[in-house]
Amino acid sequence: MSDLLPDHLIDGYKSFLEKRLPGERQLFRELAQQGQHPKTMVIACCDSRTAPETLFDSAPGDIFVVRNVANLVPPYEPDGEYHSTSAALEFAVNSLKVEHVVVLGHGNCGGIHAALSPAVEPLSPGDFIGKWMSLLDPAVRAVGANELMTGRERQSALERIAIRYSIKNLRSFPFVAALEAEGKIAIHGAWVDISSGELWAMDPGSGDFSKMIDE
Amino acid sequence: MSDLLPDHLIDGYKSFLEKRLPGERQLFRELAQQGQHPKTMVIACCDSRTAPETLFDSAPGDIFVVRNVANLVPPYEPDGEYHSTSAALEFAVNSLKVEHVVVLGHGNCGGIHAALSPAVEPLSPGDFIGKWMSLLDPAVRAVGANELMTGRERQSALERIAIRYSIKNLRSFPFVAALEAEGKIAIHGAWVDISSGELWAMDPGSGDFSKMIDE
Amino acid sequence: MSDLLPDHLIDGYKSFLEKRLPGERQLFRELAQQGQHPKTMVIACCDSRTAPETLFDSAPGDIFVVRNVANLVPPYEPDGEYHSTSAALEFAVNSLKVEHVVVLGHGNCGGIHAALSPAVEPLSPGDFIGKWMSLLDPAVRAVGANELMTGRERQSALERIAIRYSIKNLRSFPFVAALEAEGKIAIHGAWVDISSGELWAMDPGSGDFSKMIDE
Amino acid sequence: MSDLLPDHLIDGYKSFLEKRLPGERQLFRELAQQGQHPKTMVIACCDSRTAPETLFDSAPGDIFVVRNVANLVPPYEPDGEYHSTSAALEFAVNSLKVEHVVVLGHGNCGGIHAALSPAVEPLSPGDFIGKWMSLLDPAVRAVGANELMTGRERQSALERIAIRYSIKNLRSFPFVAALEAEGKIAIHGAWVDISSGELWAMDPGSGDFSKMIDE
Repeated sequence: MSDLLPDHLIDGYKSFLEKRLPGERQLFRELAQQGQHPKTMVIACCDSRTAPETLFDSAPGDIFVVRNVANLVPPYEPDGEYHSTSAALEFAVNSLKVEHVVVLGHGNCGGIHAALSPAVEPLSPGDFIGKWMSLLDPAVRAVGANELMTGRERQSALERIAIRYSIKNLRSFPFVAALEAEGKIAIHGAWVDISSGELWAMDPGSGDFSKMIDE
Repeated sequence: MSDLLPDHLIDGYKSFLEKRLPGERQLFRELAQQGQHPKTMVIACCDSRTAPETLFDSAPGDIFVVRNVANLVPPYEPDGEYHSTSAALEFAVNSLKVEHVVVLGHGNCGGIHAALSPAVEPLSPGDFIGKWMSLLDPAVRAVGANELMTGRERQSALERIAIRYSIKNLRSFPFVAALEAEGKIAIHGAWVDISSGELWAMDPGSGDFSKMIDE
Repeated sequence: MSDLLPDHLIDGYKSFLEKRLPGERQLFRELAQQGQHPKTMVIACCDSRTAPETLFDSAPGDIFVVRNVANLVPPYEPDGEYHSTSAALEFAVNSLKVEHVVVLGHGNCGGIHAALSPAVEPLSPGDFIGKWMSLLDPAVRAVGANELMTGRERQSALERIAIRYSIKNLRSFPFVAALEAEGKIAIHGAWVDISSGELWAMDPGSGDFSKMIDE
Repeated sequence: MSDLLPDHLIDGYKSFLEKRLPGERQLFRELAQQGQHPKTMVIACCDSRTAPETLFDSAPGDIFVVRNVANLVPPYEPDGEYHSTSAALEFAVNSLKVEHVVVLGHGNCGGIHAALSPAVEPLSPGDFIGKWMSLLDPAVRAVGANELMTGRERQSALERIAIRYSIKNLRSFPFVAALEAEGKIAIHGAWVDISSGELWAMDPGSGDFSKMIDE
């Protein structure tokens, strides 16, 4: 059996069965019978250090979560192509009727790093990551040109710019813009410092990020 | 400040700060300094009831996670378009060098349900979810035509078919196929029954799913 | 008597006489007899919220302190003109033989703000502050051009760039460069967040700033 | 990390965090949010024994402080060159709108000593301190020629003359003179005996200094 799944997942699942499931068995059953009604959609990064369920100590049913490299929302493009993130957004907003959409970025983001320091060769001939991160090209040019900032400062700046860019793109979806105008949905930006666990929230007016809680 | 993020996330974050961060502060710091080295990539659904970190009781750094509607891997298409899931796959395999890729499906999947019972009208004029789920069209036709199965049986059947389809697509990526041939990466399928928390693993030979652990 | 000095200074002086002087009377006497031998020169801002003696809880005799707007060190210019900061540097290094020079910047710096948002009219016809801050013109152009950063982010970036610029200028003084090469003097950068009291120190290799002490 | 800043500053910062910050955290936060509004600008010497914040037991936000060697104000020279002290004066008076400007001299001033006993060789080929102190040349000639005064008396005399000279120069700035004429700003001179902590204030009419407080 140990071949069917990686050992560490099997061990983790046993731990889930033993420690967590007993207390949430009833919740899982109800969520299966009644369907999910999450209040919030979170768009987060694939990074192994930024699970929103960990950061927000979420229970099953709490948050609907898209995860892609660098937590990007592409612009609205109703062109009949496959759009993974746009599909999830449409489903969350128009079917599940979430009340909040949160774009959650983080420090030390490998995708942002790749955007700022493109490898000489792509990771594969298809260069999927290069193309995906090219969504940020204008921002990369603006930030990358500033040689007076250190590499880490440029990284940190682009992480925040990318969140604001994704939020702008969220609003390019007509159904999001309409619901926001009616006050039925709220859009948020946040950034987590993975070295310290500090959560920073974006001011919707200025776009600035500040620490949520002073320990 | 409670306006900056939804209340339930703020409360959850406080709980994280209080209960979990103290025990993992050192781990977060090391992961930030040394970078992430997850052994496993998990492709899971956005569904609020299927967080892999919850199911596998994962620590920060354990798993690299893509989440899209219905945990789909599209076929290899090096066409220069934006491919969110393919980009994450390329990054996990060729940059992070994960040793395992797990496609994790689940019961009561809303995406699968939408594929089998298309709404009269799309969720929005762009019909992003319709297009995204159309990746499964041939399977939908095969399963949908079988009127001897109940609706719930068709749903459950398509959930498993979709996992096998995604695994087939995983192997259409030349770099995945090559590493698998060399024994450097292993591909897995799994399915979780969200009403009971039961985890089912796919037999790589037959494609059958069986319960991992009998309680 | 109250006309001779502002009331709040007189009150503060009485407090000094009562609370602090008794414990330091002997120290003041010795420092007067033996002369000052500070180990460290600090170049700080005039800002009323950034007294180095407060931040470093310094005793009399500890630190030799230059304060000008935005804690700038101009480049080495042996042109026979009056150079206030260069004169202090020369005195500290060659006469007092300090072992450390610290450039201490801070958040919410009014001089940096003025550099990034020049007033339509100068503060006076002489435009002394405009000229003084023009030392940072190249950096202002680099940072100011990035419209994807918020005003606060540009401010924070320029505050750090200005510290690195001053440190570069410190090393343009031949006597500083020579002593540093001999290991007889060490140059440091630091930045204080005046809203929280957090002190950030500059990594001499990368130029990055990181928090000194995690509370 | 102890390499990043001198040990004595790190220790002092820890002491600040422990003893002073807790009581002033709210004040720092407010000063950051609302900006600084110091009532008084102090022009003091870099000397390690004459921190105005120590002498006047100042709280953050109380005083805007320029420090240069010998607390000199150069004459008004709107020549388009860099003038550190004039820039700070312009900023304090015209932007912060301080109500008081205090020139604070002190005993045992090394800069005054250098002016009276010029070294055979300058401290560096640039002779920055020689040039800076040459602002006092006419006074040095007058005092130095008086062989009936002892060296210590000449030093003490020049310290006071220098304060009156700086105050005269303050009034050469048209914006200072205008505000003083309107009663909107007051100019003060003070001198501190660093061997005893005694503060002497200047009579604005006669220019004489007398002890502020008899213990």
